[in-house]
Amino acid sequence: MTTKPTITAFQRSPDGGIGLARDTRVRWALEEVGQPYDVRLVTFEAMKQPAHLALHPFGQIPTYEDGSLVLFETGAIVLHIAERHAGLLPADPNARARAIMWTLAALNTVEPTVLDLTAARIFEADRPWAEERLPLVEDRARVRLTQLSDQLGGSRWLDGDFSAGDLMMVSVLLRFRVTGLLDEFPALSAYVARGENRPAYRRAFAAQLAINAPSNGKDRLG
Amino acid sequence: MTTKPTITAFQRSPDGGIGLARDTRVRWALEEVGQPYDVRLVTFEAMKQPAHLALHPFGQIPTYEDGSLVLFETGAIVLHIAERHAGLLPADPNARARAIMWTLAALNTVEPTVLDLTAARIFEADRPWAEERLPLVEDRARVRLTQLSDQLGGSRWLDGDFSAGDLMMVSVLLRFRVTGLLDEFPALSAYVARGENRPAYRRAFAAQLAINAPSNGKDRLG
Repeated sequence: MTTKPTITAFQRSPDGGIGLARDTRVRWALEEVGQPYDVRLVTFEAMKQPAHLALHPFGQIPTYEDGSLVLFETGAIVLHIAERHAGLLPADPNARARAIMWTLAALNTVEPTVLDLTAARIFEADRPWAEERLPLVEDRARVRLTQLSDQLGGSRWLDGDFSAGDLMMVSVLLRFRVTGLLDEFPALSAYVARGENRPAYRRAFAAQLAINAPSNGKDRLG
Repeated sequence: MTTKPTITAFQRSPDGGIGLARDTRVRWALEEVGQPYDVRLVTFEAMKQPAHLALHPFGQIPTYEDGSLVLFETGAIVLHIAERHAGLLPADPNARARAIMWTLAALNTVEPTVLDLTAARIFEADRPWAEERLPLVEDRARVRLTQLSDQLGGSRWLDGDFSAGDLMMVSVLLRFRVTGLLDEFPALSAYVARGENRPAYRRAFAAQLAINAPSNGKDRLG
């Protein structure tokens, strides 16, 4: 019954291998629970084709295929892995519900502010309003980061032991690093560093880097 | 063991009772599974105070209290209700994972575009860039709505029977109605109408309207 799942990832990630593509989150979850997996790389062109859209109607990565089950949406894939393996959700029902809560909070309360920030910094960088608008978007993000930092306080993880909630929150916070905002919150920076130091994260990061690093040979040989 | 949960809601919702405050989503889930609940109303001032922040570190509504369990984050509350009662998640494991997937897709793939749109239309309405930027933000939202509409096709619900995924997607799509964008997508408009016609949604909507309608007497008597 236990099959080896296949995930999809960018053939070449737009982030150049710094680990922000969402397949890293799924890789990390699979590494935490010790589940081997296969990867199928897809080009940007292939992501818009019917074969990929049949797996992911929004034309993104990652997808997750395990036997007859096909999933997209990173949060759902991580929760699915967490439900089927020990290691990412506590056994206590209330603690488990809270770990799922933090997973969702990362995705729906914190991540929208960094998506907005990324749009302002990159997609709208050449617009006439870019310079004047950016501080506004940054301030909206700072509100969330301040609240999150207050909540974390001096704790190692958000609620007891490391959980899927931490995996997702650290993954979302990593997106703030390139914006410079993460550095403004020392407690959150330290929290992210703890996530990055987990052996499972290191393996996940290395696996995506092997594909995406500029020096991996694809540019020279391909 | 079965206790009556208490949720929080705005004492007076900024939307004036059109059902877009997130407690409506939780009310709807509770109505679908037939679970009675209590409501505690909170003012905007109270939401910033320690007593509320202890329940919800991001200072928002809704929260969910059931015995010793305290949850915030609407998606997590809805999934918690869906896990503990029949009616919102299919029994088949793969179909169940897909229903959770659609719940997350509503929150992390579709909702960020309408949050961005709301920010552009309301919070940034008086900024010098407002008029020129809005079409850009609308186009980003249209990409997602087109993909979602293609996926739904002529189906009644996203994946077989009505599930938590539809509850959340309809709730997110309702936010597009006031922006005018929902009307551009007839299949999605019809899908939203099917959601609104469910008796459970009607009860949830009526319950929040009883608090928020301008004519409910609070302005005159309070």
